[in-house]
Amino acid sequence: MDFKEMVLNKAIEARDGARALLRASTEQKNRVLLNMAEAVIDNSVMLKKENEKDTAYAKEKGLSAALTDRLTLTDKRIMEMADGLRYIAALPDPSGEIVRMWKRPNGMTVGKMRVPIGVIGIIYESRPNVTADATSLCLKAGNAVFLRGGSEAINSNRAIVKILRDAASLEGLPPGAVTFLDIPDREAVMEMLKLEGIIDLIIPRGGEGLIRAVTENSRIPVLKHYKGVCHVFVDRDADLKMAGDICLNSKVQRPGTCNALETMLVDDKIAAQFLPGIYGRFKAAGVKVRGCTRTREIVPEAEALNEEDYYNEYLDLIINVGVVRDMDEAMDHIARFGSSHTETIVTENYSRAMRFLREVDSSAVLVNASTRLNDGGQFGLGAEIGISTDKIHARGPMGLEELTCTKFIVLGSGQLRE
Amino acid sequence: MDFKEMVLNKAIEARDGARALLRASTEQKNRVLLNMAEAVIDNSVMLKKENEKDTAYAKEKGLSAALTDRLTLTDKRIMEMADGLRYIAALPDPSGEIVRMWKRPNGMTVGKMRVPIGVIGIIYESRPNVTADATSLCLKAGNAVFLRGGSEAINSNRAIVKILRDAASLEGLPPGAVTFLDIPDREAVMEMLKLEGIIDLIIPRGGEGLIRAVTENSRIPVLKHYKGVCHVFVDRDADLKMAGDICLNSKVQRPGTCNALETMLVDDKIAAQFLPGIYGRFKAAGVKVRGCTRTREIVPEAEALNEEDYYNEYLDLIINVGVVRDMDEAMDHIARFGSSHTETIVTENYSRAMRFLREVDSSAVLVNASTRLNDGGQFGLGAEIGISTDKIHARGPMGLEELTCTKFIVLGSGQLRE
Repeated sequence: MDFKEMVLNKAIEARDGARALLRASTEQKNRVLLNMAEAVIDNSVMLKKENEKDTAYAKEKGLSAALTDRLTLTDKRIMEMADGLRYIAALPDPSGEIVRMWKRPNGMTVGKMRVPIGVIGIIYESRPNVTADATSLCLKAGNAVFLRGGSEAINSNRAIVKILRDAASLEGLPPGAVTFLDIPDREAVMEMLKLEGIIDLIIPRGGEGLIRAVTENSRIPVLKHYKGVCHVFVDRDADLKMAGDICLNSKVQRPGTCNALETMLVDDKIAAQFLPGIYGRFKAAGVKVRGCTRTREIVPEAEALNEEDYYNEYLDLIINVGVVRDMDEAMDHIARFGSSHTETIVTENYSRAMRFLREVDSSAVLVNASTRLNDGGQFGLGAEIGISTDKIHARGPMGLEELTCTKFIVLGSGQLRE
Repeated sequence: MDFKEMVLNKAIEARDGARALLRASTEQKNRVLLNMAEAVIDNSVMLKKENEKDTAYAKEKGLSAALTDRLTLTDKRIMEMADGLRYIAALPDPSGEIVRMWKRPNGMTVGKMRVPIGVIGIIYESRPNVTADATSLCLKAGNAVFLRGGSEAINSNRAIVKILRDAASLEGLPPGAVTFLDIPDREAVMEMLKLEGIIDLIIPRGGEGLIRAVTENSRIPVLKHYKGVCHVFVDRDADLKMAGDICLNSKVQRPGTCNALETMLVDDKIAAQFLPGIYGRFKAAGVKVRGCTRTREIVPEAEALNEEDYYNEYLDLIINVGVVRDMDEAMDHIARFGSSHTETIVTENYSRAMRFLREVDSSAVLVNASTRLNDGGQFGLGAEIGISTDKIHARGPMGLEELTCTKFIVLGSGQLRE
């Protein structure tokens, strides 16, 4: 059997899994997730053993310590995996919810019902815990999951998937509910990405390179974000103490994340008053500041900035600082250099706050709050499978609801088309 | 300048148009649409003259009478175009609507705001009225439109677009609000379909061939349906008079549409009672019946059916009739042969009605109503730009709301990430 056929057969199995999940009750899905949590704990010795094969190979191949660490399953991480499964079991089930209903003049009632998407393909890199996390979210929303993890975690992923599938089948779900593409070759992924009409959605999780490769080769819709070049604009009417706190938190609370601040834009009217203080705070926190010409007039110690720097997602303790004439220039800057991820305005001016909220075209637009708050957990979605900067289906953190779609339903009493 | 550069420049113009539309008020957008309606009427002589070039060429090339008719602009059709523009102006504007807001424990308010998608590409065939219809829907929802009509209507489309652009600029919108790709070469469309990140969504309107070609070549998300293989299932507990009326209406009211009935499935328990009567009604209406073996035991006059017939979208006065053991077999049949478009159950049984609604995975699922009612106007959406059978973003008729997405907004008071 060639790749093509193997991948197709797996996908067809997944589609059958999706049909079974469409019919599964919330209780049945919850029991599956709780079984899985228990099974993960029960099999932790085996899991660690399989995981050791991957970490040993990673060391042999000379992978970086950071990568090897991400790959490693400890007792604590196995416990967290189980906790995650239990946590998703406790969340409300979006599937089957009737979003709204209305009556038509001919007497029929029309409504929209939330329904699972079908088969969701997850393509991810080294962390094996994604296997359980993604599965729990997809399953809870009523979708079958088609997993493709990184080759460096193949033994760990295989072991986790076996545990999850066995636990699912205990509750009567077919094996296709959780499908794992355990062919490490790249060609297999390419085949997977062609299966439009069988796999319904692809969510890639990983670096920009992975995401671009998936998007360029996929005939299946992809939800993703490439990068997060996030901005805070400090308006002339900002509370400058609050502005400083928000910029600092947005930059340093966890600089390696997609919603961390990369460029701070400051209204010229308050730049001379605001910049020296925040520069000192950044410096104290170990942040390197790259400033525009005007910034360096005020804070000569700042490094010089090239225009290309404004496109950078540093994911590190470096920040761009640009002084702008007014909010319009700030919004133009964001439209030009930003990645439509997360943007904050700090201001006490009502009209500008409202205009910024409406006119900035990003997955989350905030007034007087840290960019780091653009997150499924912080927003109260319960959990997230990722953040989307796409323009259709879902923007921003994607929780369980975003793993569903709606269909129209009609309750009729014999209505015909005139 | 080569194709690539020309198409890219047009798309960048459209993106600037989208930014202007994001800021436009509902009143401004409505004035634009009303201006357009007036301008279409004022220029009807010119429009008909340009249209004559297209119809003359169509006759010269020997295009079918049906195609030439679709191409032709009469005074009545020009009036309808203007009425359509005025009608869309009168509909509520979905953009800027705050779908819901909630408060988080840290005091920040999080919400979802409906926002335009951006630049929407419409790829369509011969009817020049689509130019105005699609433009009005996209603009009203706050999107720029990037039009690519059929080469056979190029003179008509050029003339309509000029009128629409002039009317838009009278209200201060940049020309990119309405962009027309007036390069008839196929290569130009291929370039258009590569502009991921500039064009945000493609909606193809036309035959299955066009839609498949667009989907296979597009790096931009596409919303579409390939075909409508729609079913009515007549349950053992159906009101048989109602079932007959619904099947007849679904098949014959306008057989050439995507939501017309193609296969009628009948529960074996009532087949002998139901089939002879409905067969007579179909025959009287000029419908050819192709029946399964069991159907032909009951109605020997019916033609024999091949299994492949169940995949057919006849768009004509032909119907497949299949007898099934029960609703589960009917749902299996629909899952196997259907196109996820429109499915109806006729039944008085509450539990089966509820199961059918939930378990059938189609863009619209109806109880006791004609499949022909799956339509934006009939459902009360005001208007539709098409019907989607896709699993993400929008399923079923797409109205103004489906031409928007949501972003997250946060009203904070200095919240930081702990």
